[in-house]
Amino acid sequence: MASWVDIPPSSDFSLANIPFGIISTSDEPDPHVAVAIGIYVLDLKVLAANIDLPKIFTSLANHPHVFAQPTLNAFARLGRAVHREVRTTIQDLLSSETTRPEILRDNETLRQKALIPQRAVKMHLPMAIGDYTDFYAGYHHAYTVGVMFRGPQNALQPNYTHLPVGYHGRASSVVVSGTPIRRPRGQILLDPQSDKKEPQTSPTRKLDFELELGCFIATPNEMGESVSINEAEQHIFGYVLLNDWSARDIQAWEYVPLGPFNSKNFGTTVSPWVVLADALEPFRVRGIENTTPLQDYLKEEKAENVFDIQLEVDLTTPEGDTTTIARISGRNLMWSFPQMIAHHTLGGCPLQTGDLLGSGTVSGPGGASGGECGSLLEATEGGKKEVMLAGMDVRKFLKDGDTVTLRGVCGPDGARVGFGDCRGRVYSAPVSK
Amino acid sequence: MASWVDIPPSSDFSLANIPFGIISTSDEPDPHVAVAIGIYVLDLKVLAANIDLPKIFTSLANHPHVFAQPTLNAFARLGRAVHREVRTTIQDLLSSETTRPEILRDNETLRQKALIPQRAVKMHLPMAIGDYTDFYAGYHHAYTVGVMFRGPQNALQPNYTHLPVGYHGRASSVVVSGTPIRRPRGQILLDPQSDKKEPQTSPTRKLDFELELGCFIATPNEMGESVSINEAEQHIFGYVLLNDWSARDIQAWEYVPLGPFNSKNFGTTVSPWVVLADALEPFRVRGIENTTPLQDYLKEEKAENVFDIQLEVDLTTPEGDTTTIARISGRNLMWSFPQMIAHHTLGGCPLQTGDLLGSGTVSGPGGASGGECGSLLEATEGGKKEVMLAGMDVRKFLKDGDTVTLRGVCGPDGARVGFGDCRGRVYSAPVSK
Repeated sequence: MASWVDIPPSSDFSLANIPFGIISTSDEPDPHVAVAIGIYVLDLKVLAANIDLPKIFTSLANHPHVFAQPTLNAFARLGRAVHREVRTTIQDLLSSETTRPEILRDNETLRQKALIPQRAVKMHLPMAIGDYTDFYAGYHHAYTVGVMFRGPQNALQPNYTHLPVGYHGRASSVVVSGTPIRRPRGQILLDPQSDKKEPQTSPTRKLDFELELGCFIATPNEMGESVSINEAEQHIFGYVLLNDWSARDIQAWEYVPLGPFNSKNFGTTVSPWVVLADALEPFRVRGIENTTPLQDYLKEEKAENVFDIQLEVDLTTPEGDTTTIARISGRNLMWSFPQMIAHHTLGGCPLQTGDLLGSGTVSGPGGASGGECGSLLEATEGGKKEVMLAGMDVRKFLKDGDTVTLRGVCGPDGARVGFGDCRGRVYSAPVSK
Repeated sequence: MASWVDIPPSSDFSLANIPFGIISTSDEPDPHVAVAIGIYVLDLKVLAANIDLPKIFTSLANHPHVFAQPTLNAFARLGRAVHREVRTTIQDLLSSETTRPEILRDNETLRQKALIPQRAVKMHLPMAIGDYTDFYAGYHHAYTVGVMFRGPQNALQPNYTHLPVGYHGRASSVVVSGTPIRRPRGQILLDPQSDKKEPQTSPTRKLDFELELGCFIATPNEMGESVSINEAEQHIFGYVLLNDWSARDIQAWEYVPLGPFNSKNFGTTVSPWVVLADALEPFRVRGIENTTPLQDYLKEEKAENVFDIQLEVDLTTPEGDTTTIARISGRNLMWSFPQMIAHHTLGGCPLQTGDLLGSGTVSGPGGASGGECGSLLEATEGGKKEVMLAGMDVRKFLKDGDTVTLRGVCGPDGARVGFGDCRGRVYSAPVSK
């Protein structure tokens, strides 16, 4: 499927993708909706204002202002059938063989207004996030980190293969790619092995990233009602990359018995473009096998329940040297997002449009030697080893001035479905008050 | 301080209180702001529309529609100096010796419109809650429950006296008093002591309440900035009672290693009237002594850092018999809300207007025999004993049709500062899908 837009073969944003995001521009400074195509965005607010919207996008006849909204929530709330119609129509408008060339391809005036280079737009957080839940479905990560925190005997708790373990995260500190991340201060034990448990308050010395996939909810469920496993797919809007920045020393001291708190709530970065659920459909694969008999509410019809996304993590030093420190497939999950949704709502918890679910850190079976670690905690074996970087530099944990960039892509050159960058730079901790 | 409104001496809503809430009425069906006074509410939207607002409430001159909003967030965001001026002015308008009798006391037309019996109004959730965090500051509860889950050696983790332990709760399932609570289904172990960890999915058999105090945030902090302990008080809007409904069998199986999840996220009930921080000031007392040397960021100037609220829990059976099963003082906290705020923001986590903090379950030193348990888990020693009820009934955990009502009040008859009821009735679990 070729486009009349000039799209580099290596672009994440081929005609097969059409991810949705929130932009602002010098002409339209209020945040509003766009899609990415090659090195451009198609400004859907501008497009909608210049066409016969109900005729071109029939499913939006009653929602003429949905692309003028400052978040994607209103569009997401319309449901997957509408997302499908809108995405398919945009694909047609941008296709070399478009059935309606007069709308955009051959309309130079509108093209000039609506097709804008990405470097000229500012990206915003794509959704208003009511609640953010982080799961723990990356089996290799859960096992390796479990060994470090609790030893091999208790690395995975007995519940791990029976249910997708998760916890409530902090919605207010979810930020869009590019937002500065300030090194948090917190209570830490300088000598965790000592019997004397005397913490001190200092900037974290063990700042880390976590490579995750994020999933946004489209269709809500009522409080008291659960979402069945085979309906769950229909509640999903789309996916982003997610960096669950973590302070390991704060985490180790605070997390018992109620889970991570200040070690996680200082910042969580998501990529700006929401890849719609439909766009990832062609890349389904089986996740990590789980031999434990599942409860009925977690049994899926589809065996291929996760996505073969090629994920990678780049670390850029303050000096500007970039090293790809991990390459991992998105198939390394033991639980799928539909399973997470079915479990989350089993007791009647209401998921709302815009809610964010994180997969948990995705690491591969190759571990540290294979370059398949979704966190430095794993790659450095808890800070015992060093990760080698370009420029003869090394890291155990992140330094001030480091930039972490997550990437993810599916499909061949020319028809790639990718996420764009999920990037954050670390700034020094605030001065103590 | 007497009022020209006829206020029963035992009312929670004396002239010393003036709590804020969100109501709707048959004449004004859109939710909007009111205060409670005796058995009435004073409809502030109606009041504002019928007076010279900037003259009477000078601090609201630039905010003429703040009482027409569907939540208290806009009012809360104006900050404590404004809350104080508005509350003081309302106290004056309602006082027998009001300095402006013509506004309300002697204005029968406006009185008829604005002073409405509480039974004629519907109450709504007072705030739009972005994030909800639940702490664990009730020392007696933490210790007693810790013994049950982990034995006396590990009842309290080493961090407990060093920092206010907390976790991120679920904002979407926070509901106002009176909202039905559906018994959740979940994964449970029928025989937790067995080595075979084979869960089954069923309605919880161990549904419980938790008596807590809730605190709403007024003034936000920027991401990356912390709130210092002696500024924290200025970030507080006010307080409510909070029932953190809990499914103990689901909790025991799911909570390691990331904390409670489905055992808590099916429903959290708050009382509808927000008692402003100023109204509780006269009732300050010292909390539970903590002999551990504190980190500087947790050291408060005020020794009297919690409130002497007389809390109680009523259980009403499906047959209608009511028993007060606990009476506990709010002084039984080891950490204050300013300490919780200072800790929560230590690493730069942004708290937003409307965010809700829970204290954790408040239980007294008297334990089960003293009727000072803020949960059935404690009162029944994990289901080993029975709580005696009126009507020759007993409970280990809650039955379908039971109603739990939390109450809390400070001060003497005629000048009470109370919260009103925080009530929820349990309905049967949904049929399995």
